[in-house]
Amino acid sequence: MKRPLILVTNDDGITAPGIRALIDMAKDFGDIYVVAPDSPQSGMGHAVTLHSIIQIEEIQIEEETRKEFSCSGTPVDCVKLAVSNILPRKPDLCISGINHGSNSSINVIYSGTMSAAVEAGIEGIPAIGFSLSDFSYNADFDAARVFIQKIIAEVLEKGLPKGVVLNVNIPKLPKEDLQGIKVCRQADAKWIEEFDKRVDPRGKTYFWMTGEFKNLDKGEDTDEYALSQGYISVVPVRFDLTAHHVLSEMKNWDF
Amino acid sequence: MKRPLILVTNDDGITAPGIRALIDMAKDFGDIYVVAPDSPQSGMGHAVTLHSIIQIEEIQIEEETRKEFSCSGTPVDCVKLAVSNILPRKPDLCISGINHGSNSSINVIYSGTMSAAVEAGIEGIPAIGFSLSDFSYNADFDAARVFIQKIIAEVLEKGLPKGVVLNVNIPKLPKEDLQGIKVCRQADAKWIEEFDKRVDPRGKTYFWMTGEFKNLDKGEDTDEYALSQGYISVVPVRFDLTAHHVLSEMKNWDF
Repeated sequence: MKRPLILVTNDDGITAPGIRALIDMAKDFGDIYVVAPDSPQSGMGHAVTLHSIIQIEEIQIEEETRKEFSCSGTPVDCVKLAVSNILPRKPDLCISGINHGSNSSINVIYSGTMSAAVEAGIEGIPAIGFSLSDFSYNADFDAARVFIQKIIAEVLEKGLPKGVVLNVNIPKLPKEDLQGIKVCRQADAKWIEEFDKRVDPRGKTYFWMTGEFKNLDKGEDTDEYALSQGYISVVPVRFDLTAHHVLSEMKNWDF
Repeated sequence: MKRPLILVTNDDGITAPGIRALIDMAKDFGDIYVVAPDSPQSGMGHAVTLHSIIQIEEIQIEEETRKEFSCSGTPVDCVKLAVSNILPRKPDLCISGINHGSNSSINVIYSGTMSAAVEAGIEGIPAIGFSLSDFSYNADFDAARVFIQKIIAEVLEKGLPKGVVLNVNIPKLPKEDLQGIKVCRQADAKWIEEFDKRVDPRGKTYFWMTGEFKNLDKGEDTDEYALSQGYISVVPVRFDLTAHHVLSEMKNWDF
């Protein structure tokens, strides 16, 4: 069997500890191409660069089985450029992360990490986004190594259903307290914004976005619940956004 | 009954002809608050401004029943700021657009117009994104006036199911050729990127993103098909991204 080709990206930037950890965990599974943003791109969602140029720089790496490219664009730009212009062939897997901070529940929508995985999914590539519920630069990305490698191995072996990518979140816990992996649904949650209003030296008002996360979901089959119980959550995510469950009802509306 | 409060936004910027047309179509339905980007934000997806400030400026408008605010942030920022800091109460409806260009099928994912509507949906506000398949500044936004007003009236009267917003796309056709409104599912389609590679005056490579849209879906119940037949497509869109149809199968995976 051919050695798998694995595309690695993220949204925290190519030098972030999270992606360095993920590269290290993935390197035994295949040849690695890293195409990741040259600077932090958190909260970029599924943004693409249409009205500006994108620059790419190859970074020298000592190992032959790994190539790395730093890109001025968004996480989604990175995946698009990697697939169309950088990789020698369509990769067997795309992994994104490990994100510094949670992308569980509604955060999947704002997440550059998950948008990169979704973009790979649109391209027909099995894809997984990994996130750790710890914003710290010195977060312990290695605690979940065994579980992350298990998920990578499983997806490399089985692939994923068409139109589905995985959103994997890891609780901030020491290795010995991680309970295992749970397949879940996305919790019904949201952010309640509280904008911090300030005045600049010239008297003009400006705002900083802040907010409080609210889990509105009491279900025990959600990612938030699994994380609260010490499990790593795996949510299968789709990008056909059609609300199929209301389609037939809505066809009777008087439009 | 209280006069409805309607939030209007877009991603092409507050001065774009598309949003001016939409404001004009909506003004008879209620009091209008416009909170929209001060510059074009196409392709911003669900990006939010976390690492920079957001500025807002009130624009003088002659009518008492309308207030307008220009915002330095993304479409999603506009909705968040409007709801938490600008509107006198939670609005009865959020309308986004009319976008200059199609947001049908997979474009829903990249679209700032639709992300604004989705953000309103997350806030529990009935929301609709409108897009016209015509990039031209001088596009005929008024051709679909009757249909757009019908959809606004219907949603104001009935609301929308929880967790669902509408993605409305209008074909580029003269008024008399518009066939009506069809409720559809999102077509399975994608962009095949072709990056235009260039060299800057200092010898460094850069790229412009271009691409070709590919509809991979032969179904006659899709938005792409409806548009091709001269209909206005209405896709109910959800933001619970869980791939519920594979959940039970995936719970048996060996994680």
